Amino acid sequence: MPTFDQISHQLEHQAIEVPSWAYGNSGTRFKVFGSAGTPRSVQEKIADAATVHRFTGLAPKVALHIPWDKVEDYSALRRYAQDQGIEIGTINSNTFQDDDYKLGGLTHHDPMIRQKAIDHHLECIRVMGETGSRDLKIWLADGSNYPGQADIRARQDWLAESLAAIYEQIADDQRLVLEYKIFEPAFYHMDVPDWGTALGHVQALGENATVCLDTGHHAPSTNVEFIVAQLLRAGKLGSFDFNSRFYADDDLIVGSADPFQLFRIMFEVIRGGGYGPESDVAFMLDQCHNIEKKIPGQIRSVLNVQEMTARALMIDREALKAAQEAGDVLGAHEVFMDAFYTDVRADLAAWRETRGLPAHPMRAFAESGYQEKIEADRVGGTQLSW
Amino acid sequence: MPTFDQISHQLEHQAIEVPSWAYGNSGTRFKVFGSAGTPRSVQEKIADAATVHRFTGLAPKVALHIPWDKVEDYSALRRYAQDQGIEIGTINSNTFQDDDYKLGGLTHHDPMIRQKAIDHHLECIRVMGETGSRDLKIWLADGSNYPGQADIRARQDWLAESLAAIYEQIADDQRLVLEYKIFEPAFYHMDVPDWGTALGHVQALGENATVCLDTGHHAPSTNVEFIVAQLLRAGKLGSFDFNSRFYADDDLIVGSADPFQLFRIMFEVIRGGGYGPESDVAFMLDQCHNIEKKIPGQIRSVLNVQEMTARALMIDREALKAAQEAGDVLGAHEVFMDAFYTDVRADLAAWRETRGLPAHPMRAFAESGYQEKIEADRVGGTQLSW
Amino acid sequence: MPTFDQISHQLEHQAIEVPSWAYGNSGTRFKVFGSAGTPRSVQEKIADAATVHRFTGLAPKVALHIPWDKVEDYSALRRYAQDQGIEIGTINSNTFQDDDYKLGGLTHHDPMIRQKAIDHHLECIRVMGETGSRDLKIWLADGSNYPGQADIRARQDWLAESLAAIYEQIADDQRLVLEYKIFEPAFYHMDVPDWGTALGHVQALGENATVCLDTGHHAPSTNVEFIVAQLLRAGKLGSFDFNSRFYADDDLIVGSADPFQLFRIMFEVIRGGGYGPESDVAFMLDQCHNIEKKIPGQIRSVLNVQEMTARALMIDREALKAAQEAGDVLGAHEVFMDAFYTDVRADLAAWRETRGLPAHPMRAFAESGYQEKIEADRVGGTQLSW
Amino acid sequence: MPTFDQISHQLEHQAIEVPSWAYGNSGTRFKVFGSAGTPRSVQEKIADAATVHRFTGLAPKVALHIPWDKVEDYSALRRYAQDQGIEIGTINSNTFQDDDYKLGGLTHHDPMIRQKAIDHHLECIRVMGETGSRDLKIWLADGSNYPGQADIRARQDWLAESLAAIYEQIADDQRLVLEYKIFEPAFYHMDVPDWGTALGHVQALGENATVCLDTGHHAPSTNVEFIVAQLLRAGKLGSFDFNSRFYADDDLIVGSADPFQLFRIMFEVIRGGGYGPESDVAFMLDQCHNIEKKIPGQIRSVLNVQEMTARALMIDREALKAAQEAGDVLGAHEVFMDAFYTDVRADLAAWRETRGLPAHPMRAFAESGYQEKIEADRVGGTQLSW
Repeated sequence: MPTFDQISHQLEHQAIEVPSWAYGNSGTRFKVFGSAGTPRSVQEKIADAATVHRFTGLAPKVALHIPWDKVEDYSALRRYAQDQGIEIGTINSNTFQDDDYKLGGLTHHDPMIRQKAIDHHLECIRVMGETGSRDLKIWLADGSNYPGQADIRARQDWLAESLAAIYEQIADDQRLVLEYKIFEPAFYHMDVPDWGTALGHVQALGENATVCLDTGHHAPSTNVEFIVAQLLRAGKLGSFDFNSRFYADDDLIVGSADPFQLFRIMFEVIRGGGYGPESDVAFMLDQCHNIEKKIPGQIRSVLNVQEMTARALMIDREALKAAQEAGDVLGAHEVFMDAFYTDVRADLAAWRETRGLPAHPMRAFAESGYQEKIEADRVGGTQLSW
Repeated sequence: MPTFDQISHQLEHQAIEVPSWAYGNSGTRFKVFGSAGTPRSVQEKIADAATVHRFTGLAPKVALHIPWDKVEDYSALRRYAQDQGIEIGTINSNTFQDDDYKLGGLTHHDPMIRQKAIDHHLECIRVMGETGSRDLKIWLADGSNYPGQADIRARQDWLAESLAAIYEQIADDQRLVLEYKIFEPAFYHMDVPDWGTALGHVQALGENATVCLDTGHHAPSTNVEFIVAQLLRAGKLGSFDFNSRFYADDDLIVGSADPFQLFRIMFEVIRGGGYGPESDVAFMLDQCHNIEKKIPGQIRSVLNVQEMTARALMIDREALKAAQEAGDVLGAHEVFMDAFYTDVRADLAAWRETRGLPAHPMRAFAESGYQEKIEADRVGGTQLSW
Repeated sequence: MPTFDQISHQLEHQAIEVPSWAYGNSGTRFKVFGSAGTPRSVQEKIADAATVHRFTGLAPKVALHIPWDKVEDYSALRRYAQDQGIEIGTINSNTFQDDDYKLGGLTHHDPMIRQKAIDHHLECIRVMGETGSRDLKIWLADGSNYPGQADIRARQDWLAESLAAIYEQIADDQRLVLEYKIFEPAFYHMDVPDWGTALGHVQALGENATVCLDTGHHAPSTNVEFIVAQLLRAGKLGSFDFNSRFYADDDLIVGSADPFQLFRIMFEVIRGGGYGPESDVAFMLDQCHNIEKKIPGQIRSVLNVQEMTARALMIDREALKAAQEAGDVLGAHEVFMDAFYTDVRADLAAWRETRGLPAHPMRAFAESGYQEKIEADRVGGTQLSW
Repeated sequence: MPTFDQISHQLEHQAIEVPSWAYGNSGTRFKVFGSAGTPRSVQEKIADAATVHRFTGLAPKVALHIPWDKVEDYSALRRYAQDQGIEIGTINSNTFQDDDYKLGGLTHHDPMIRQKAIDHHLECIRVMGETGSRDLKIWLADGSNYPGQADIRARQDWLAESLAAIYEQIADDQRLVLEYKIFEPAFYHMDVPDWGTALGHVQALGENATVCLDTGHHAPSTNVEFIVAQLLRAGKLGSFDFNSRFYADDDLIVGSADPFQLFRIMFEVIRGGGYGPESDVAFMLDQCHNIEKKIPGQIRSVLNVQEMTARALMIDREALKAAQEAGDVLGAHEVFMDAFYTDVRADLAAWRETRGLPAHPMRAFAESGYQEKIEADRVGGTQLSW
């Protein structure tokens, strides 16, 4: 097995986008709990995101969500972020909260509503121009709740048309990234429920269209790393929305529910060329810190990704290949598990220090007084939430 | 197979409780859509519930949720309901929306919070006294999101204590009904996730404690009618929360996602003695009309239950038994399916007319002008929602 | 809603392929139960299949499985089938029962094994020439049981190569049909687990390559009719393997576990142009009659498909469209359900008689003495099973 | 966190029962692959089981399955096992492979078949007397495949009667252990599908009746450790059947599919008093080594249990409790994960050597020549399998 030192240089490339909405309040349909210190403005969200980067060196970008993060002057916002030490990353569109979208957006049976949804995406593309964002991420909440309610097939055609109209405005150095999800908010059919559907659409669009894989958006017992391998093979894995789940789209901290799955995913990413300076796969978080503190929740998340990446990088690929080619089932599995069971945390702590970062970011943040400060400062105003 | 006429008298016993919250707005964590005519007060909700009963003869009771339906004078509310032609049914407690309950209510590690949650239930029991309600239904949202977060085992002990303190105040003609749910809002563990846990607690409490089975609260591929049979066998099936689902707790209209499952459930209810004047099982709806109209949604729901009950009553029980005892797998299945495939709708329409009800309640409601009237009248104020 | 008479002519096109293996014994890994009258030869299986057709008019073809149905002279077998009144349909390959395929066939890491598996398919193509079969169906049991055991990504490349070598030998009037399955017999990863993977491979192969959708091969809560719509939209739905399930690949009688799902599937088939004389979608059964009698099990199955097809054809498509375009969620759903709840069985019985078929095929078969005859005749020899 | 040395003495109590059938061939319904060296007799299975114990010190008992392991003289078999260095453990009954049990055993509608199944269990109890076994484990394959096929409710009553008849013969120092399973081999309903059903029956029987929890026998996304906690709280956790799964009852090596789940399970076992000299919970394996070598598969399994037990023992219980009582969600989770991520393998290797065991049992076995020897010796005869 390679030593930590042999793989540590590869960790330098790691960059995880954090979502602005992770710093606002979130919850379930039953209740959104508030918490002291929650941002009241986009700027405060960006400040929190930058804090995560400052303590970890892992989160150089913050993803925005339009209209949640709508501002007058996006160039100013970009400069604000840069002043905090981070860049603005992916722009996420939202066609699920306007009353007009009750029965769909890009797939609505009414062409006027479809146009409205298209226009919203064109606005997002304009924002991207000003924020310097590369990716437009489209998560489609569209679908239906009752059999017969909607024309599943026609909606695919409308979706294709809508996406084409949007894609036309994507610049050469930009990407359209289409996300899929099996259910919620629609409970009978989703218009883009699985990777097959998403892939079909982005292949029809062209080179700058790719797929976003949210790790919580699959049916129970889906082999997610297999999908990673497939999308990489097709050259269409655009980005990840990392989180974890025990049941549905639980949006828990990545790696907290099934660390071994995260390890397997990172291995297939590496195996398929999706990691490192040559790859343009974007690694994002998309989580809801419903009951835990948000900034530490994000720090924990990026650390989990880093720790599992280190473990996955330490797999002895040659020994693995040899065992696989010998048909040695248990031997190959053991090579794989050896890396997973290796405790890289002390090595990572030491390595962080060599890069001017706190050895223990969770502890360092707790001791920094930042949380206490925002709890004291951010009084009054309206806490942001979905 | 018995004819419709042979079973129709059994339909007279059918009574379904509708939930007050079904008439308010509901939605997902992503969006609650408003709709014209939505009630702004408990009284308007009760008026809508009574309308469902007027058109169907099936919904003589409305369930309340405290504090959503909190009023000054519950006796007056009871009289208001009676004036509308219905009674107040089950009282539902709520320990998931106060900030104190972020980490639990009846199972919270802090005894002060547990006492607060207990006190809320005692208040609900007082309300029951005034509304004439028989059942206190406890749906426990309590649980945890992360492994290690909570002491699963200790919380069971605390839950037992809390429930005992509540049960002590339940009168002889009242019941404590404990509901279970596999997940949501908690995403790692729920304190009452399954019927086994609920049954264990109500057996420890005593005779007047029973279980509520919500048809959407199970793991994928759970055989729900088996649980019906088990709870009836244990003498502990207190009530149903009817709805349907394709994925999780989707809260769709009962019978809309899997009509055959509803048929199987109704058969086991009848088989096990849970239906008819001798039984005290309460049949409630618990659904969210996120995108469809609410009153027609409720009418459709109670009709679905009625239609499936009629089909289930028409199973030729003797022929079924004979085929089962002959080990005739396909024969027994066919007897069962014969009833399911029988179209009882025309017979039901005629039967409704003999009872002074509209033959086609959906159509009659649409033509009644009620919806238009509430849309015109209910302007201003705040629409109620969760 | 159209009347039965208005749609009955469309039922004339219905043709369902029955699998030869359905007449042999099958079971679970725990036990294969034998039963009196089970065929001891391919010819006896074909005789049973022809019997299903004789009583229903619905099953004009029998699918074979190589090597289970290996014979010296396939032309003779074809003539034998024709003499019985049916044709030989799809040829199914088998690369999961030879010891060499323990770790894979078309995807094996050893090129020698891959070649052996390819050669087996070339043999199947030769059989097709002699039997007059159009379709080569490939269900891939290949996969791995333990993370690390196999190189998921490399196996995709090997699979692509293997399929290309087979496809090269497919004649212009033949098709290669690739089936997918989420799990079993492999328990960690399957090389073709989902429709996205299957579609990618057949698209790479060319026009005569399509996908087979087995209704029991999906993750829990997958929307199967959505996949039907997608594959038809892509022009790649080659065939169905019909069965039903409550849990996994249970291989129960189609329509017995969730009749409403079968209805929805048939609707999307019709909606997408997959039904009727213009379509070349093949409708096959793939079921295991573990405990029920096999011939009646097959008769019940093809009748279920016919009954649900009739119901799906009776959907008032114009009213449905109008309600969908009006955004009338409940109205559209009701139009849909109206057809599902319509009891077509008496109409179908009468219609059968006009075509010289027994009104009640199950009863007619039971009364025919065929079962008693084969039970008496087929004594000695070895009953066939998987 | 405690050091390894502080917890290592608790590892001395660890004893895992290995099943005799793990050494025979197993497979799926599609194929059982043979492998060189597979036992042809119970004695050879016991010799293999003893080998696992010799290399690990973890497997002092072997569970038998009747009639698979039927012999003339059980006392002699017991002595044979003792000579090999192990004891005979749990006796497993089998009422799923005789033709009479096609439609059920202890729950069959025919009282003659039920009596036959009861008598088989009485025979098992007699075997226990001779082998010195404490536990009679009953896994019920009984159920039905089609709705209507069987009387679900009546079968519960028959089951209760059958179990009572068996329990009557259980000696004071013996136990009846009832296992549950959600599906397979029955595909519509199982008579004992869940822990609630199993618990109800064993509570009705009495003190010496307990529940067996097979980790692969649940619906997708079931929280298994919660059930562990519940059964321990009820004083009714009799034993474990350990294995792991990605999909259904995959019967993979314990800990190979979701190591973190095994960790959580072991923690709840320890938390609830189910581990150590005071506890009488039996820890068994129940796995199928379909494609991997069987003896190393078993060694790997018991090592996985040992490693996860060590990690679970190392959780800093005081720190955990403090964080839980402070409502520190992330802090408590981190304490929990710290132990999981700790690599105990080197410490365990050293500790093994102090006890006269090989530091690396997998390697030691591979180098021992045992496998080569049995492959050379065990030629001719019939390899055992299910």
